[in-house]
Amino acid sequence: MDKKQKQTYNLTSWKHKENKTVIDLGDGVKIGDQSLTVIAGPCAVENEEQIFEIAKIVKAAGAEILRGGAFKPRTSPYSFQGLGEKGLKLLAAAREKTGLKIITELMDVEHLELVNHYTDIIQIGSRNMDNYPLLKAVGKLDKPVMLKRGMAATIKEWLLAAEYIMEAGNQKVILCERGIRTFSQETRNTLDLSSVPLVQQLSHLPVIVDPSHGTGRWQLVKPMSKAALAVGADGIMVEVHPQPDDSVSDGFQSLNPNKFWELMQEIKVLQSTLDFFTLAK
Amino acid sequence: MDKKQKQTYNLTSWKHKENKTVIDLGDGVKIGDQSLTVIAGPCAVENEEQIFEIAKIVKAAGAEILRGGAFKPRTSPYSFQGLGEKGLKLLAAAREKTGLKIITELMDVEHLELVNHYTDIIQIGSRNMDNYPLLKAVGKLDKPVMLKRGMAATIKEWLLAAEYIMEAGNQKVILCERGIRTFSQETRNTLDLSSVPLVQQLSHLPVIVDPSHGTGRWQLVKPMSKAALAVGADGIMVEVHPQPDDSVSDGFQSLNPNKFWELMQEIKVLQSTLDFFTLAK
Amino acid sequence: MDKKQKQTYNLTSWKHKENKTVIDLGDGVKIGDQSLTVIAGPCAVENEEQIFEIAKIVKAAGAEILRGGAFKPRTSPYSFQGLGEKGLKLLAAAREKTGLKIITELMDVEHLELVNHYTDIIQIGSRNMDNYPLLKAVGKLDKPVMLKRGMAATIKEWLLAAEYIMEAGNQKVILCERGIRTFSQETRNTLDLSSVPLVQQLSHLPVIVDPSHGTGRWQLVKPMSKAALAVGADGIMVEVHPQPDDSVSDGFQSLNPNKFWELMQEIKVLQSTLDFFTLAK
Amino acid sequence: MDKKQKQTYNLTSWKHKENKTVIDLGDGVKIGDQSLTVIAGPCAVENEEQIFEIAKIVKAAGAEILRGGAFKPRTSPYSFQGLGEKGLKLLAAAREKTGLKIITELMDVEHLELVNHYTDIIQIGSRNMDNYPLLKAVGKLDKPVMLKRGMAATIKEWLLAAEYIMEAGNQKVILCERGIRTFSQETRNTLDLSSVPLVQQLSHLPVIVDPSHGTGRWQLVKPMSKAALAVGADGIMVEVHPQPDDSVSDGFQSLNPNKFWELMQEIKVLQSTLDFFTLAK
Repeated sequence: MDKKQKQTYNLTSWKHKENKTVIDLGDGVKIGDQSLTVIAGPCAVENEEQIFEIAKIVKAAGAEILRGGAFKPRTSPYSFQGLGEKGLKLLAAAREKTGLKIITELMDVEHLELVNHYTDIIQIGSRNMDNYPLLKAVGKLDKPVMLKRGMAATIKEWLLAAEYIMEAGNQKVILCERGIRTFSQETRNTLDLSSVPLVQQLSHLPVIVDPSHGTGRWQLVKPMSKAALAVGADGIMVEVHPQPDDSVSDGFQSLNPNKFWELMQEIKVLQSTLDFFTLAK
Repeated sequence: MDKKQKQTYNLTSWKHKENKTVIDLGDGVKIGDQSLTVIAGPCAVENEEQIFEIAKIVKAAGAEILRGGAFKPRTSPYSFQGLGEKGLKLLAAAREKTGLKIITELMDVEHLELVNHYTDIIQIGSRNMDNYPLLKAVGKLDKPVMLKRGMAATIKEWLLAAEYIMEAGNQKVILCERGIRTFSQETRNTLDLSSVPLVQQLSHLPVIVDPSHGTGRWQLVKPMSKAALAVGADGIMVEVHPQPDDSVSDGFQSLNPNKFWELMQEIKVLQSTLDFFTLAK
Repeated sequence: MDKKQKQTYNLTSWKHKENKTVIDLGDGVKIGDQSLTVIAGPCAVENEEQIFEIAKIVKAAGAEILRGGAFKPRTSPYSFQGLGEKGLKLLAAAREKTGLKIITELMDVEHLELVNHYTDIIQIGSRNMDNYPLLKAVGKLDKPVMLKRGMAATIKEWLLAAEYIMEAGNQKVILCERGIRTFSQETRNTLDLSSVPLVQQLSHLPVIVDPSHGTGRWQLVKPMSKAALAVGADGIMVEVHPQPDDSVSDGFQSLNPNKFWELMQEIKVLQSTLDFFTLAK
Repeated sequence: MDKKQKQTYNLTSWKHKENKTVIDLGDGVKIGDQSLTVIAGPCAVENEEQIFEIAKIVKAAGAEILRGGAFKPRTSPYSFQGLGEKGLKLLAAAREKTGLKIITELMDVEHLELVNHYTDIIQIGSRNMDNYPLLKAVGKLDKPVMLKRGMAATIKEWLLAAEYIMEAGNQKVILCERGIRTFSQETRNTLDLSSVPLVQQLSHLPVIVDPSHGTGRWQLVKPMSKAALAVGADGIMVEVHPQPDDSVSDGFQSLNPNKFWELMQEIKVLQSTLDFFTLAK
């Protein structure tokens, strides 16, 4: 990167802050503290039964954070747009039942107070990475924000989007690599794992990888999750659904409970090996 | 496109509306009525002197609509973000002086009333093509909206974004091709002129081409403007600045007054030839 | 482009040669001399009847050069690979009958003498733009070479590929823009018309545009051909087939005789208008 | 993938061959047999001292195969093109001294006998993935061929290129993922690790990952090598140079001996963990 680019990184840069940013969600749940954080859950909150069932499954398997969309950004206005506040209440109820923390997407300033009231982490989706008014608005909150990389965003543009949030006051930013759009259409996106160590060289912010959206194929979620660990990600976010074939959206990229359990077992073993390298330094 | 895609186009499709959409801005200024509409002006409104000078120049050369950003979406939070309402007032004053119609970008629902109050056309920028709450909000207005193609948006996604606006009630939608992001970095974007006839096959909405952002190089603006006409665009949007080297943004892609004058002369002659083909049918 | 890049352009650059390169094929057929050259014909030579019929049609409509593949680069080894020498002989016979010049693709050094014996122009396809041994080999011939842009090639890489041919001795190089591979899959490729004026700023070599491969849809061939003229291309190469639906390859992007005739009429009128601009300078 | 695509995979497909292809290079060196193969060495063979030094280093660290270019495909005709036969002889001498197997690139049919005479594996580079005459020619040899993915090649096109080699008779094909060209220019290419499990679902051929070309930055080589293991690659190919800053090409992406040693240590530990998962099935 050229001189000018380096100068534009300010609050996101190692020059601004010597220690890695650790996001503390309470109850011992931390992102960026060398542990591997697993966020899991359905694409969208569909109903009480569905979200409670998934919450229990992912909790039992070892995940710490439950994901689920209440406001869904959909390409077509005729697609299911999410349950709205009802979805937020169901997520909060699932948290109550399981002790999991929750993350959900915020799509506009209008629902900022509402989403902020219920969630532990606010997700800014790929489609809104360039939505600067929204970035500035969440920048005024005292709430962790997970910023997904835009589907055609460079590393520089992604970090500058984070800079918008931090410049407005909120230092609790988590980055999320979710794949970029390339000529390749055999996967939904091209998951750019090299972005993880590249970002970590430039910034103290933690980075999560989303292999579900990043590949769009459940068969690739386990290998790419393990690769995310190997490359040094601070966590992964995985779509899980009790009956992927019946889900209202993204069923083809969701793991069923058995596959998720298997993934969690392998990840734990792999993590202990990777920790060994870190300790050895 | 497959069967399912075709079904998703509804209000944007020729099946919904047999006649081409014509946007009537009053005073004889129409977009989509076989004439070629020229929108011209600076990237950003900088001050009274600058916007008045440019307005007079582009009016004299034959443009009908003045462009100018008051709220600027910038990759870095440390870049100039626009004059805000002051910029809107200057645009309106330039309209008063010259009779030009005006277009300016709206970035968020918060400023919707304000921008709507001053402008003749609301521009939704590339970064906000997927900002569905914003699309729904402008969909409730009785005001023409120009929707720029997202930098990684397919034709289908672009038309479905227009569908969001129309489904909310506003049928006055203009599309704008402004280049897509590809591996090629020798131009700022890759201006995809094939999108114009492709969209026109699918939809009754008018399409404007922006060769300034589409190429990022002023030397390419004239040839690509002529190509936009040849391919059947309903208009072009061109950046013009009295002293491109001194502009606060995008100087490298702005035409100076002499170059813009030259462009307008060639376009008029070319348009008369192209009209001949249309009449001959 | 940076300083280093500029230094690497040598023989292709305006610094090496002040006058535009004109390729003289004899009998008054020239490429690069301000006239617009039309190359037309089928994707592949299929049989005598087909190539003779097409040759007569494109000649009557005003084309000067007949295209047709005898050696076909196909993605699958199980697809039709061309008639080989028999195809070359049929092309030569069609030249005899009509007076058209001919162009055909060379895929390897092994068939260099054979292809060179029959053809007026040797085509190097997109897949071989980086095939440096092949470029060096045609660089030793005294025969015009048309070098197609690679599907992921930058302008710099394309010109440096031309540099390989010229450095080996052959100065008769024609460039051909045929679309690049991008995320967009609604056209076969994204035809990058901005490459034409960009290359012409950097180099004295003539540039042909191929809207058939560039879009992969016959409906887009006429508008994109006209846009190619408007942008300053030295010619176009168009696929024509008497019964596109029955062709062994690329039928969906071939014009039928009527459509080709219509295209030629519009192009002639458009060209006279564009000539007017040139004369006016 | 659609029905038609599946039908086109024949010899590369699991339907043709039930067992994973294992390439046996003799002396216990195998690719595809569950072990992880490490190929290491310089971008280009520069001189005897350089190649002998690197060979000793990579052997000591545990690599089994030495890489080194004797014929180099370079974008500019004015760049260093390799030592040719002298380079091949130096590679063979290094093999003699160390017991390492060797791999080097073949760029044209003209040098097929020569390269085949010296090397243990023939590499077909990205630029030649679509060079079908070359694929057919190596398809007639009894020698392992490593086929790099083209920089804009889909998985389907890559497997069909392998099909060309196998259809000609040679079943000893190794695939190599080396990154694809995307809008992202902050890495030299975008290393598409999802291609590894995707290819392994479709084909019995072993897959090697090249993180050096895949990222173009030595700092990313270790994390991406570990990710390649995690994702199930059959091996990695890494550029190593005693003094990266002094190398004639690609120094910025080469590991120095210390960094390579460190990489090999971590890989061995990681591999034992990953083997555990395989055994557990």
